[in-house]
This record gives sequence, structure tokens and C-alpha cells, in this order.
Amino acid sequence: MGEFELIRTYFQPLADGAGQDQLLLGPGDDCAIQRVPPGLDLVFSVDTLVEGVHFPSDYSPDHLGWRALAVAVSDLAAMGASPVCFTLALTLPDANPGWLKPFSEGLARASKAFGIALAGGDTTRGSLTITIQVHGTVDNGRALYRSGAKPGDLICVSGTLGAAGAALHYLAETDPSPAQLALLSRYHFPQPRLELGQQLAGRASSAIDVSDGLLADLGHILEASGTGARIDTGRIPMMAELVTLKGENARDLALGAGDDYELCITIPPEIFETLEHSVARELAVIGVITSEPGLQLSGPAPSGIQGYEHFGRPA
Amino acid sequence: MGEFELIRTYFQPLADGAGQDQLLLGPGDDCAIQRVPPGLDLVFSVDTLVEGVHFPSDYSPDHLGWRALAVAVSDLAAMGASPVCFTLALTLPDANPGWLKPFSEGLARASKAFGIALAGGDTTRGSLTITIQVHGTVDNGRALYRSGAKPGDLICVSGTLGAAGAALHYLAETDPSPAQLALLSRYHFPQPRLELGQQLAGRASSAIDVSDGLLADLGHILEASGTGARIDTGRIPMMAELVTLKGENARDLALGAGDDYELCITIPPEIFETLEHSVARELAVIGVITSEPGLQLSGPAPSGIQGYEHFGRPA
Repeated sequence: MGEFELIRTYFQPLADGAGQDQLLLGPGDDCAIQRVPPGLDLVFSVDTLVEGVHFPSDYSPDHLGWRALAVAVSDLAAMGASPVCFTLALTLPDANPGWLKPFSEGLARASKAFGIALAGGDTTRGSLTITIQVHGTVDNGRALYRSGAKPGDLICVSGTLGAAGAALHYLAETDPSPAQLALLSRYHFPQPRLELGQQLAGRASSAIDVSDGLLADLGHILEASGTGARIDTGRIPMMAELVTLKGENARDLALGAGDDYELCITIPPEIFETLEHSVARELAVIGVITSEPGLQLSGPAPSGIQGYEHFGRPA
Repeated sequence: MGEFELIRTYFQPLADGAGQDQLLLGPGDDCAIQRVPPGLDLVFSVDTLVEGVHFPSDYSPDHLGWRALAVAVSDLAAMGASPVCFTLALTLPDANPGWLKPFSEGLARASKAFGIALAGGDTTRGSLTITIQVHGTVDNGRALYRSGAKPGDLICVSGTLGAAGAALHYLAETDPSPAQLALLSRYHFPQPRLELGQQLAGRASSAIDVSDGLLADLGHILEASGTGARIDTGRIPMMAELVTLKGENARDLALGAGDDYELCITIPPEIFETLEHSVARELAVIGVITSEPGLQLSGPAPSGIQGYEHFGRPA
């Protein structure tokens, strides 16, 4: 099967599915065309997943399709943006329908769930590598940066943390328990916090998605904002299954493990007071931004945790 | 050196260099932000280069930096768009400054030459793979598609064809002749036809850049437009050095070899008559669009040529 036929067969349906008005021209030409309505800013991000680095070699292509798009879309959530379209640069060792079909199906499910249409792509031969660039839009000037945190702002996280990181231990489990399955589902099917991000656009002072681990990602906010933070580790929200399975290590995972794709946001207390109940209940307040640099932890002590840096030594 | 430090050191200068008003937020946050002015459409394309497939393993990182961006920008030229910004997804076996420095310098030269600023990226570990997505803008509704060719339209190409394809034979030459150097320069430093594309936006009926070979790329126009074409192979423009070095094979390369990144455009004859002299002289008329499907060649006969398809058998 030739490249062009391959792309048409498996990926063309993703261009039609999410029906985005802004997408004037989808895959098949030299470029795609998006018409951004007046009053909106274009927000975009690119993410690469490499086999053996970001997912195991025998990882389910169906799960991978979802994960690859979800991980990229999570960056739109962190900016408070609404998804529009994405491109897929797919490097494959061969054009194997047994892999392409489930991968494209997982991708299609995510595309539909997040309302994001395939706009274009490139297919090349090589080691399995998936690069996705997502496009979203947000009202002019209301995108959430990492750099806006101010002393006194409350530090909040959405959902629960640590489950996806714990799930890495169970990926090879042939007969996982219900608790293990609950954690595995967090790893396989990340749910970008799009609605929450959009509700906080123009209101939170900063935001980031938790991809590398809470402490590492909060660290990015602190560095970009020129501030410090005080965190009460006892307030980090965790799934009951994580605490059951991991006991004393659960909190370490919640602080240091990545792949959860929850949001970490900072918000001035007077704005927090004005949040709708439906928004506030999505957030756990875990600490406060300080003018002194550095991160102070109170509460149960963590042990030996760190964020993941692709080429890094332990920081 | 950690990933973030690495990116800052080598690539941050590319974010500042091309100074694009539209780029509200560059690298370093969850997303970049572009504000597309009213009246313009966003035009974007993604291209991947894989070591050992799209360039040799010992290929100069400096040349590669230029080539990777030029090849992607060429798709903007084919749409008639003006470059704005790009993202770089770079997969590397290691963070080797001896490779990163010249690669980033070649990339920076291209970034400056084409007026396109780095907006963001991702750096991962794996086999050397370079994915670049370029963003440009064009006046609403004036982008050039592949699908607009009509019977009677003149088929034109810019510059000369075949030189970059011929250069593949000389990549390992330790002491290339001046003629070989002339061809090698076409391979190493493609020059996207941005100005020409912009001048033809809203005027040509279709366009494509010649990346896979003239016959293959013209074939994409014919398929998208539902037309055929008649080409006079004697009219294909070629560099004198190509004819000197390749003799009877020169025309085959001009028809079948890729990597030239010239434009192939179709244009109604009555519009061709209105082109400024400075635009018309950039174009060679090589044939005409026909209502009968298929491609008819007249003039000197080619032998055994075909476009390049990444996973393809010979068509």
C-alpha cells in the first residue's frame, strides 16, 4: 500500500469527524488552512512520543492513539483554549494495517471526544515516533501563562495525582485487579481538563498541566513567575485505589510522578471566592505562592522524588 | 545538560531573530500564541525528515538545519503564503553540542532568510528525526490549492529542475568539481519560492512545490483537479551544469527527481498575459492542462522515471 492510500484509508475519517468551522482546508494539499475568527488568539503546541521512551514497545496501538492526542490536547487545556484541529507526523517502521487500524481508531475516539479535527500530516519510514501539533483558540488576551503567579495566590490542582505514574508498574500485569485497572485507566486514557481550563481562562493567574510531576511542573510556574511556593503535602488529592495499593509511597507518586494530565493553577484568593461552585469543586487548594523563592513542603514528608527531564540528571 | 537548558542554549535565539508581530508568545510555555490579523488565513504544514531515509547518516548538521526548515517553508510558498513562525520537534540519540550547535546555526540562517521565527517545540530521545511545522498567512481566500487547474490553463515551473536529484550522486565526493558543487548547492540549500508564490496568490489556478519530482507532483494537481495534462519535455528548464554532467539522463532527472523545491503552477492564459514581466520571467511554460485525464509527454522521451513514494512500490 502506498503512503497516500494508507493515509486516506486510516486517517481521512479523522478530518471529517470533528467538523470544525475554522478548518477551511484539511489534509491532502501542500498546507491546511484555518480561519481564526476575529477576537480569538491561535494557541498551539507540539508533542512527540517515542517508542521505548514515552511508551513501551508492546503498548496497545489503540491506547496509544488516544494517549498521543490527549497528551497534546492537555496543553490546550493548560492555556484555557478550545481545541480546533491537529496535525499528525507519524514515523513508522512499516505500513502495517494490524497496527494502523487500531491506532487510527484510538486517535479517532480522542478526536471526537475532544472535538478536534485532523488538519494534515506527514507519514515517514523509521522508528515509531508520533508527533502531534494541536491548535486551539482562546479569547484575545485570556490565555493562561506559566508566568503570572503572584505572592498570595492559591495553588490548586484538579482531580487526583499519582495514579498514572503508579500504573507504570502494572502495564505488564496479565490479570490486573480492579484497583490496578482503575490506575491503568488513568495512564491509558488521560482526560485533558479542557472545560476547567476554559472556565479559568482570564481568571487564574497561571496554569500548567501535570505531565512531568507536580513538583517539576509547579517548579516551571515558579521559575517563569519569579516566585516561590508553600505546599501542604497532606492536601494533595489522591485516588483511594492509589493509597490502597501504594501505601506510604502514594504521596511520593502524587508529588513526583507524571502522566496525570491534571491542571495545576494559581489563582488570586479574591478571584477564587468568585468561582462558580461547579468550578471550585473541581479544584483542591494545596498551597500558596510566596515571594521568597524555593518550594517549602509541609505535611507528610516525601522521599526521593523528582520530575522527569528527558536528557537530565537528577536535579 | 538538561533538556531545558539545551533548548535555551541553542534554540532560544531563533525565537527572537525573526521578530514576528503575530507571535504573541514563543517557546517556554505549554503553548505558543499567534494572533492572526483580520483578513488573513492561517496556512500550515508539517514535514518530517528521518536520518537514513531523507538524508544520509553522515549529513552535515549545518546543511540539515537549513534544509529541514527550507523544505517545510516551501509548502508555504506553494500556497502563496508569507511565513510567520514554526515549531521544531527534534528527536535525538543524545544531546551532543557538536551536532546541536551547527544544526541550530543552519536552522537560524534559514529562519532569518525566510523571516520565520521559532514558536515552540519538543525535544525527545530516540533515532534522529526532525519534524517542523510552519505557519504562514495569506489574504482571505487567496491561497493556492492543488485542485483549481482547468483545461486550457498553462503549466509553468520556476527555476530549473533535476539538479538536486543529480546531486545525490555527489554527496560523498571528497573533491567535487565546480559543476558538481553547483548541483550540490541546490540539494543542500533549497530556496523556497516564497516571493513568486505570494505574487501568484489569487491569480494562479493551482500550485504545488516540486518535492517528489515534477511528474509525481504535477500528478497530484491533475488528480486533485480532475484533469489531464500535455507536457513538452523539451521545455523543462535545466541547469547547464546538469546537462554537462548528466548528458542524456539530465531530462529524466528533471522530470522524475525530487528535492528541487521549485513551484509547478497552472495559470489561465488570460491571467498569464497580465503577469508583471518580473513574475513572468521566473516561469517556464512547459505544457497545458487538458480535459482528457492522463499525462501526455511530447518532445525528447524520458526513460524509467517515477516519483518518490515513501512506502510505495513503483506506480
